[in-house]
This record gives sequence, structure tokens and C-alpha cells, in this order.
Amino acid sequence: MADKPYYKHHVFFCLNQRDEGRPCCADRGAQIAQEHAKSRIKELGLSGQGKVRINKSGCLDRCEDGPVVVVYPEGTWYTYVDTHDIDEIIDEHLVKGKIVERLKI
Amino acid sequence: MADKPYYKHHVFFCLNQRDEGRPCCADRGAQIAQEHAKSRIKELGLSGQGKVRINKSGCLDRCEDGPVVVVYPEGTWYTYVDTHDIDEIIDEHLVKGKIVERLKI
Repeated sequence: MADKPYYKHHVFFCLNQRDEGRPCCADRGAQIAQEHAKSRIKELGLSGQGKVRINKSGCLDRCEDGPVVVVYPEGTWYTYVDTHDIDEIIDEHLVKGKIVERLKI
Repeated sequence: MADKPYYKHHVFFCLNQRDEGRPCCADRGAQIAQEHAKSRIKELGLSGQGKVRINKSGCLDRCEDGPVVVVYPEGTWYTYVDTHDIDEIIDEHLVKGKIVERLKI
């Protein structure tokens, strides 16, 4: 468990789509946010082994707090409203290693 | 970062399907493995906040080592051949907290 992590920051965006009325991340801009994060991380040259990986995931089961994203191995959970929030998570947390307290859940 | 993790073990199965010839987890039994893990964790009463979450994810970009699964916050990566291997990961790692060295990548 003391191994160096394969990814320094491994980021999972919940992209789950629900149809039965319960809130879901897919209805709140999750896909656009994930695509934005993926391309911005690539532009910054931060993608790859030892660096950052942006992934889609199935339901993270925090629907009422959504849209949600979790960053491992730290285990930091965030919500967000739009790509401005995603940029703040990228610039502060993924680049500088600082938790964005205002978006943390 | 010292918060108690929302999930004690958060498990992501790569379920990516590739069509261009590169090896991919979806061609190697990933969906059956993920469904098996999800239902077995439920049967064991281990699913939920503070316990275990089994998720699907997009491409984890370790295709040549696939099929792969990663367990966070530990950041332990495994490969597997079939549901017997998945059961060993569940019984040893997720239940007892012991890394399954023979499956680790």
C-alpha cells in the first residue's frame, strides 16, 4: 500500500442517467464537465501515468449531492455547478494539491 | 484529507469497449466480473456508505494489463481471469483488508 500511486490524482465523474425521477448527475451537466476536465488536463500536459486521469463512472450513489466527482487516492468529493467550478478544482487541487473547500461535500 | 472515507473500499471495474483492435477489458469478461462483485457485496451486506461500493468506469488506460480493477483509497490495482479471482479479491481484500499479491499489477 506504500507503492507510488499509478495516477497521482485519479478523478471519477459520475455520469449516471436515471429515468425514474430521482436526481442524477447526468441531468446536471456531468458529461460536459467530464469532457471539459479531460481536454483541459490534456492541454495542460497533465494526463498519463504518474499524473492525472479523468474517468467516467457509473452511479456513485450520492445522487442528492450531485453532480459529484471524487478524486483518489485522497478521497476528496466535490460538487460543481459548471465548468468554472471544474477549472477551480483543476487549478487548485489537481495542479497545486490544495483542496477546494467551497466545493467539497 | 484526514476525513474518514465515504466508502471504505471504492472499487472501479474498467468496462471499456474498444473496436480498433487494441486489447480491452470489455472483451475479457469485465461486465460479468463487475456484476458478480456487485451482487456478492450486496449479499454479504457490505454495500453502502462507510463500507464498499462497486462501480463501472470508463477506460482506466491499462489495457495491456487488463482486465483491470482498482480499489481506492488504497490504490491497489488487480487483474483477474474469472469470478473465482474476483471472489478472492472480495474475501481477502474487501472483507479482511489483505492485499491479494498474486493478482496485483
